[in-house]
Amino acid sequence: MVMPSPSYTITLRVEVPASQRATSTVVSTVAEAGAAVMGVDIAHSTPTKLIVDVTCDTVDTEHGERVVAALNALEGVHVLKWSDSTFLMHLGGKIEVNAKVPLKTRRDLSRAYTPGVARVCLAIAEKPEDARRLTIKRNTVAVVTDGTAVLGLGDIGPAAALPVMEGKAALFKEFGGVDAWPVCLDTKDTEEIISIVKALAPVYGGVNLEDISAPRCFEIEARLREELDIPVFHDDQHGTAIVVLAALINALKVVDKKLEDVRIVVSGVGAAGSAIIRLLKAQGARHVIGFGRNGALHRGETNGDVYRRWIAENTNEEGFTGTLKEGMAGADVFIGVSAGNILTGADVATMNDDAIVFALANPTPEVDPIDAGETAAVVATGRSDYPNQINNVLAFPGLFRGLLDAGAHVISDEMLRVAAVAIAEVVGDDERNGAFIIPGVFDHRVAEAVAEAVRSQTVAEKGGSAAEAER
Amino acid sequence: MVMPSPSYTITLRVEVPASQRATSTVVSTVAEAGAAVMGVDIAHSTPTKLIVDVTCDTVDTEHGERVVAALNALEGVHVLKWSDSTFLMHLGGKIEVNAKVPLKTRRDLSRAYTPGVARVCLAIAEKPEDARRLTIKRNTVAVVTDGTAVLGLGDIGPAAALPVMEGKAALFKEFGGVDAWPVCLDTKDTEEIISIVKALAPVYGGVNLEDISAPRCFEIEARLREELDIPVFHDDQHGTAIVVLAALINALKVVDKKLEDVRIVVSGVGAAGSAIIRLLKAQGARHVIGFGRNGALHRGETNGDVYRRWIAENTNEEGFTGTLKEGMAGADVFIGVSAGNILTGADVATMNDDAIVFALANPTPEVDPIDAGETAAVVATGRSDYPNQINNVLAFPGLFRGLLDAGAHVISDEMLRVAAVAIAEVVGDDERNGAFIIPGVFDHRVAEAVAEAVRSQTVAEKGGSAAEAER
Repeated sequence: MVMPSPSYTITLRVEVPASQRATSTVVSTVAEAGAAVMGVDIAHSTPTKLIVDVTCDTVDTEHGERVVAALNALEGVHVLKWSDSTFLMHLGGKIEVNAKVPLKTRRDLSRAYTPGVARVCLAIAEKPEDARRLTIKRNTVAVVTDGTAVLGLGDIGPAAALPVMEGKAALFKEFGGVDAWPVCLDTKDTEEIISIVKALAPVYGGVNLEDISAPRCFEIEARLREELDIPVFHDDQHGTAIVVLAALINALKVVDKKLEDVRIVVSGVGAAGSAIIRLLKAQGARHVIGFGRNGALHRGETNGDVYRRWIAENTNEEGFTGTLKEGMAGADVFIGVSAGNILTGADVATMNDDAIVFALANPTPEVDPIDAGETAAVVATGRSDYPNQINNVLAFPGLFRGLLDAGAHVISDEMLRVAAVAIAEVVGDDERNGAFIIPGVFDHRVAEAVAEAVRSQTVAEKGGSAAEAER
Repeated sequence: MVMPSPSYTITLRVEVPASQRATSTVVSTVAEAGAAVMGVDIAHSTPTKLIVDVTCDTVDTEHGERVVAALNALEGVHVLKWSDSTFLMHLGGKIEVNAKVPLKTRRDLSRAYTPGVARVCLAIAEKPEDARRLTIKRNTVAVVTDGTAVLGLGDIGPAAALPVMEGKAALFKEFGGVDAWPVCLDTKDTEEIISIVKALAPVYGGVNLEDISAPRCFEIEARLREELDIPVFHDDQHGTAIVVLAALINALKVVDKKLEDVRIVVSGVGAAGSAIIRLLKAQGARHVIGFGRNGALHRGETNGDVYRRWIAENTNEEGFTGTLKEGMAGADVFIGVSAGNILTGADVATMNDDAIVFALANPTPEVDPIDAGETAAVVATGRSDYPNQINNVLAFPGLFRGLLDAGAHVISDEMLRVAAVAIAEVVGDDERNGAFIIPGVFDHRVAEAVAEAVRSQTVAEKGGSAAEAER
């Protein structure tokens, strides 16, 4: 059953007769209609009538309409208007640009702007690397999309994608202290997107690619990594991979197995699947099999894109051939980044003892998490209404915080790996269990730990390459 | 003589013997070296020694070095380090991105981000004009440059231009409440700049072009105006024109002359000059002559760019031919947007009685303002160290505030004209005189008045075209 959700909170302005009983009836009617009442406020009162604001969570828009109809059916009760909290929150957008310097006097103006600013400009012209010290480049990330693969909504265009990118920017600041800015591009041309992001780069210390449809997103990421001197991160791939590895490290501790020993089945061999497998291997996983729609990928694989070929060449040492369901038998770990409802609890029951199931397809997981939990020891999903949510918010703010602090020019696999380990380690030995393998999204220790790990790793790699350059 | 300036404020950390006399000597030495002491703070004290922070305005970097040398020459005094306030103010950049919505609970997150945000995205996909209501587009302006004509510094590149664009963004917020974001493009290709700005447009409610070298800036502005449905403003042209017209309206009141009667000489027939002439004519000026390097532009003009040809066809009804100096004789108003020191006080003396002189070349005006003031009734410059500074800060924040509030799709000449009139009217009848024809840059009434005028004009023009559309 679908429950009322805070993402569908409505406020109803209702006129009722001025009596305690009438107000109580309103509240009970809302509750009987299936909505969760959050609050009742008297907006206005006269001797005969009350204007009451009732705030409640509903399931969806139709549910809201049913609540309104139920109230209007009461004697003497009229719903004057109703508003949707989610839309109210978005009015005028969710982020703003503020000055960090005072501009109240001529003295302020002559330093922050003309004529003083000219000296700062000249200093950067003479020594370009000073831009990271004297401008916002030190702390800015471009959140780049073309609006072609937004959430599960598909190609809704750059303007409609903006609320997501604003939300992402808000999260960047809230959790990582990063100044992120939405770049919603009104073009789908791969080459044009690449050249635009390159042209915009002087203002930014990093690029976060977001919700760009495959396969263009891979080409764009690969080219920008090659051609820019600031880190480029594709959150849909690498953000997910980081959090999956973090969760798996802790899940394996719960069941007392070792990553190098377990058999891991990955369903989904696109961008996310390949990024996950790559990171699992970096951490020491040895027995991984990737499954596409037609079954296990193996050395014999000759067709398919670069990701499928990479998986075929770097996994499935045993040369297993068969379907996903066949591959589940005896496996220790299932990681799904594919499609909803492709497995049943019975399939999970064929796995090894103390099985681990990460069913991350959204909004419908690969297998019902309740059914999976019948036999599996640990179950995780991408949803916030089950335990163990695999949420990218745990990764990207701290990751970029560390990259910016260290002045990183690239992102390495090792930086992603230490980020995952840092997330895992936030969950203490005394906290860890099958329903708590990953920290909550509001745990501020996470971003700090990730940032520190990535910062140290970046500095180490810079030092390493500096030493090599000297040789 | 060049005076110490707050744009060259330095703080010296000085070790001195622990005596009242030693500290006094330090201060008097700094003053004798020509610096203006702003403050003395004791940073650290021991029985025998003091560490003192001396903050003072200097003329330039060499002057700062002379101050340091003078102090080090004192017995027992050592300058431990010195820092430049302008550079300190720029550390880490001057603007930041902040969330306007709370993100502290799961309830917040489910509205501002997933899953709630999906509904907002869909609403915009279905009704694109809702982007102005539900996203930052309502209040954002892109400050676009390629770094080719930054201040008087020339082509210093996009990274070195960033401190100016950040300063502009900070001014946009401080004076207009506008969320402006720097777009410093690493390309000089006209077509590429046009297509990039078009691709970026979904996030912005307006575009402010800045410090792009001529003639590319004209082509870029013209094309973007034609191809975008948000207002595009070239501040170097139109910002200057607005403030010039505002100042001239008040200057003419001071000398009790009418715009339609006066003879106006404009030196400089490029982008700024043509924008000024255009706006003067919109306000009713009838006798304008533009002068280039080779003298007056007249109907016989056949060569030159589009701006020169427009001026030739729309000014100089009498067909005057001659040099700028010849044209000054008998003129009522001189407006210079050309080069420094091309006229003398003697040239100004040949003008009509109660002459008005706007010598706006920066940093050196067309004629020395002190010399011009010998005979002219009103003198204005672009500099902050003389009365009557013509400063674009008076125009752009209020202009965009009004455009954004009214949801403008274009900028018309009439919007620029009413902005100028609004600025002029901020100076009350009881305040206006030859040394006060234009409000100060920190007068917050200015942006409000400009915004209100532009808002009304935009709404009126929209209503007009809406009515036409219905016919």
